[in-house]
Amino acid sequence: MNEQLIDNLVDQVVAKINEERSFLVEASGRHVHLSQEHINALFGEGYQLTINNYLSQPGQYASKERVTLLGPKGTLHNVVILGPARAASQVEISGTDALALGIKVPVKESGDIEGTPGIVLVNGHKTVTLEKGLIIAKRHVHVSTNDAKKMNVTQGEIVKVRINSEQRSLIFDDVVIRVSDKFATAMHIDYDEANACSFKKGIRGHIVK
Amino acid sequence: MNEQLIDNLVDQVVAKINEERSFLVEASGRHVHLSQEHINALFGEGYQLTINNYLSQPGQYASKERVTLLGPKGTLHNVVILGPARAASQVEISGTDALALGIKVPVKESGDIEGTPGIVLVNGHKTVTLEKGLIIAKRHVHVSTNDAKKMNVTQGEIVKVRINSEQRSLIFDDVVIRVSDKFATAMHIDYDEANACSFKKGIRGHIVK
Repeated sequence: MNEQLIDNLVDQVVAKINEERSFLVEASGRHVHLSQEHINALFGEGYQLTINNYLSQPGQYASKERVTLLGPKGTLHNVVILGPARAASQVEISGTDALALGIKVPVKESGDIEGTPGIVLVNGHKTVTLEKGLIIAKRHVHVSTNDAKKMNVTQGEIVKVRINSEQRSLIFDDVVIRVSDKFATAMHIDYDEANACSFKKGIRGHIVK
Repeated sequence: MNEQLIDNLVDQVVAKINEERSFLVEASGRHVHLSQEHINALFGEGYQLTINNYLSQPGQYASKERVTLLGPKGTLHNVVILGPARAASQVEISGTDALALGIKVPVKESGDIEGTPGIVLVNGHKTVTLEKGLIIAKRHVHVSTNDAKKMNVTQGEIVKVRINSEQRSLIFDDVVIRVSDKFATAMHIDYDEANACSFKKGIRGHIVK
């Protein structure tokens, strides 16, 4: 084989490996997870959320139900509720949203809601006051147990992820790896982060060491 | 000198050099630059903008005057006009703003407005329809001619800039260097980018090679 052919093959192998190690990036809009208790309070006793469309994470769906978030300085209408019901209610918004609501909101991993601010949820005449659970989600990659081995990452690891776009390429640091055999491999960022990297649907991320 | 002392000195020198090479990062909210012609159309013939406060760039100021941006899907009220008047009008918004207005807006360097969308500006009963000039500003570092030598960067160069924060450190790629002896050295990002790196006032950036 001549040198050029070898170079060519090496390039193809590298491209293939990079492709295999890359993952879909998804931009998450503001959304609410509710406990069954809070679903009852907002929609009536024993109410079941209506599935609108399934999300990339197996079993997770956007419901048809919407709520309003009521802050001291502003309100956010028509906020989607994700199902199924969870043990604890949690509201995930962006930094831009936090400013609109007038609440200082910390960046936290999903589920880590101790000490976080609360928020008032409204559906028509029904309201629920959450004592805690309002967070800006820390950016993260859901990784299936199988892919974690291939990608050589472990649960809780902090990695850097490169995003290439036309005018706003960047490397996100402080990205948490979350591994579960219930996950489909995909990175989740919020709309602020999506705008900061000129996100378009289908964009992929690559871990950089 | 013993080894520990040398290590200590090296650490101090490196810290000093890094500090010297770092620069202030500022988050720019949505704003409007106007030509004198458009100031006349919106505020009256020969109108002069009123200085509210000076900005980090010498001679540049936020005026007391405000306008409304009118898009097909939404409006943005109370948008600050920066002075002094420029040769061409230009409106700089974030990706979040573009979505609110309902206009597809490209990421462009300031001044590079050929082929960009227009927007309607409103002040009371007076309106101006810009045919072009609506952009999402490409992130950039203003560098004084003196600092450019120290920092070893040149006009138009694209660099990577590291931002350290508590939960959202990142490395912005696609950062344009703009050099002028009229500039004070400072990086400008928009609010989406600010939220993506948990921006706080006084945060500093470092060029990474």
